[in-house]
Amino acid sequence: MSSQSPLPDGESAAAHVDGERLWRRLGELAALGATGGGGVRRLALGPEETLARRLVGRWAEARGFSVTVDGIGNLFVRREGRSPSAPPVLTGSHLDTQPAGGRFDGAFGVLAALEVLEALEDGEVSTDAAVVAVAWTNEEGARFQPGTMGSAVFAGELELASALAIQDSQGVTVGEALARVLEESGVGEPCSTGFPLSAYVEAHIEQGPLLEAARVPVGAVTGIQGLRWFEVVVLGEEGHAGTLPATRRRDALMSAVDVVHALRAVLADPEDLLRFTVGRFECSPGSPNTIPGRVLFTIDLRHPDAAVLTARADLIAQTCRDAAGPCEVSVQETVSSSPVVFDPRIVELVERSARRLGLDCLRLPSGAGHDASHMARVCPTGMLFVPCAGGRSHTETESAEPGDLAAGARVLAEVVCELARAR
Amino acid sequence: MSSQSPLPDGESAAAHVDGERLWRRLGELAALGATGGGGVRRLALGPEETLARRLVGRWAEARGFSVTVDGIGNLFVRREGRSPSAPPVLTGSHLDTQPAGGRFDGAFGVLAALEVLEALEDGEVSTDAAVVAVAWTNEEGARFQPGTMGSAVFAGELELASALAIQDSQGVTVGEALARVLEESGVGEPCSTGFPLSAYVEAHIEQGPLLEAARVPVGAVTGIQGLRWFEVVVLGEEGHAGTLPATRRRDALMSAVDVVHALRAVLADPEDLLRFTVGRFECSPGSPNTIPGRVLFTIDLRHPDAAVLTARADLIAQTCRDAAGPCEVSVQETVSSSPVVFDPRIVELVERSARRLGLDCLRLPSGAGHDASHMARVCPTGMLFVPCAGGRSHTETESAEPGDLAAGARVLAEVVCELARAR
Repeated sequence: MSSQSPLPDGESAAAHVDGERLWRRLGELAALGATGGGGVRRLALGPEETLARRLVGRWAEARGFSVTVDGIGNLFVRREGRSPSAPPVLTGSHLDTQPAGGRFDGAFGVLAALEVLEALEDGEVSTDAAVVAVAWTNEEGARFQPGTMGSAVFAGELELASALAIQDSQGVTVGEALARVLEESGVGEPCSTGFPLSAYVEAHIEQGPLLEAARVPVGAVTGIQGLRWFEVVVLGEEGHAGTLPATRRRDALMSAVDVVHALRAVLADPEDLLRFTVGRFECSPGSPNTIPGRVLFTIDLRHPDAAVLTARADLIAQTCRDAAGPCEVSVQETVSSSPVVFDPRIVELVERSARRLGLDCLRLPSGAGHDASHMARVCPTGMLFVPCAGGRSHTETESAEPGDLAAGARVLAEVVCELARAR
Repeated sequence: MSSQSPLPDGESAAAHVDGERLWRRLGELAALGATGGGGVRRLALGPEETLARRLVGRWAEARGFSVTVDGIGNLFVRREGRSPSAPPVLTGSHLDTQPAGGRFDGAFGVLAALEVLEALEDGEVSTDAAVVAVAWTNEEGARFQPGTMGSAVFAGELELASALAIQDSQGVTVGEALARVLEESGVGEPCSTGFPLSAYVEAHIEQGPLLEAARVPVGAVTGIQGLRWFEVVVLGEEGHAGTLPATRRRDALMSAVDVVHALRAVLADPEDLLRFTVGRFECSPGSPNTIPGRVLFTIDLRHPDAAVLTARADLIAQTCRDAAGPCEVSVQETVSSSPVVFDPRIVELVERSARRLGLDCLRLPSGAGHDASHMARVCPTGMLFVPCAGGRSHTETESAEPGDLAAGARVLAEVVCELARAR
């Protein structure tokens, strides 16, 4: 088949990527859970995600690809390779969204993966290893915590039985919700949870502003930065706003303001790679004429370099204590995730493939977490990014250009062909 | 009667103040709406306040005092004077409490007033003007806004019909709640809303720490400080905490922290008389990994001197704008109340009376608002304070010493006697 092709196999597959089909399918998928604000609400293992699985399954079966589902609900679409003994190349992302999410986060990676399979078919390219597209279960963690659940179970980092027992806020378990999804979608034969892979590559919108700012259509992702979460509680004493002199106050709000100020100074980064966010900030009792007695705030700290992240995170507790003035302060770490470094051969392959297609490419780390971070622990793994408008994501106004999405899918086709040793 | 007394009339009345009776009655009143934490929940015009009115009415009628209620529910207990043409001297406070309030805020002023009437009776002191004890309706403003409602209506600063139409959060109007209170308590003949007075004096716990710190049992209150409330909104842009570089953020929380920091510098007061409080501080959307797009906070600013208060308040808007960095900021004034200066003759009279009773006395302004601020606009008005533990008020842990409360009631008796020209 491919031996008749006038183009090398990778280029032939890329040439058969159909940007219009990809864009049309993104629109059809976005209709499932569409919100009034132009976004998508498609929670993990809910009714809209069931419809999305059915739609993807229909597209896959129309081309004769096999569809399977593992024990945690990860959905696999498989195009066979020539060599049954070669472990497959896996590519994909997720179909679930944030409660008020966008049209591209996750959806692009799944449909770009399906587009690669279609392009291999359309270009009559045969590969040595099978190529498998995946839709991971519950990447977002909006309904069931933690997120990136499907890939964590696949990679053996979370036990299947534990994951199935996790409940949503209504008391519904992952296991119960998954049983309903499988029954109602009718998509996918059962398969084993976890199997050998030769590589994993995930395409995603950047969710940050760097590619757009650089006017570059493709990013070769070097890794996923490490993440540390802290919860800080500042305890003062409530009092009457009209009567208590400043010198006698133990004002939790004023101390918390000083603490955040001090943290910002200590966590300043001239390179602008350290990400420091106070996202939640709650002040009690919250009455205009009562001096606040308690403030709780969160710290989200990220950096791609494990040593830098540790060094900076180690400064937090002491800085909080030193700046809290007359109030007491307690600092608790709630989440810690080490930086992930992607396989350098795949980073280079993404760059090389982009160049071959005449596309500019920028190396950058991922600011957000992804299923690829679990996969990096079990097989050579990489990611490629495409720009999104204003770097906005996890919002209904998330937006991306059809041309950039098609370019990303073409690079993905090249990368997958090379990894699966296409002929 | 009093002409036979071996003591001057004022001293005779003060000598007949019964500290144990006062303390016992404070305990009986605190049982109506008692909370698990040792405080009181007795909302305006609710069932517990109905019981409190009945109890006070019973005590009054047992001594033959007349009990009346005006159109807004203010409860008056009257001991007649010799001269029907002399406008009465009024003294009292309120029976309602905060939702989790204390045993003394308001209750002390009402029962000290009743104790003065009892002492006049026990000491057989006749006065030229009638002496009237009052329990004002809805001082706290916890259930119906605004607070100090009864005195505002009495003083003609709030129309009776408007006040009666105000609803609580359940849609019940003041008028409906009051009708039920009157029917169920069965206390008080109707009287006119607003009548001429020769003076008003209110006894209250300080609700601040100054008397306790100075170890002085009585405060001669010089006035009520002015109050300005502002609402500040800082508008930035939401974003992903992991991806957006610091230099590209419009982080509403970080800007709000800078704004509060700048305000504190501009509103610093070496004399420690200016009161600056940020009591409410709300950060949206409040997710640990989302950069906040909006912060709303309140400013409560107070000072006894109108010129100082105006000069400092005038700095707020510009300071907010200058410090908001990349975010937008809007500042809106929501409440403005000018400082009240009490009648200097009454301030002196409180001091003189305390001294005559061998009690130390400190001049100080009131940090909190009181019904006396409306009364100051219609007749010579003053207040006296007694210490409360740690300056705590509007909390279940509010506490005061029986000896201080009795001392305060004795000074009140002297002051009232002088104002009513006792013989």
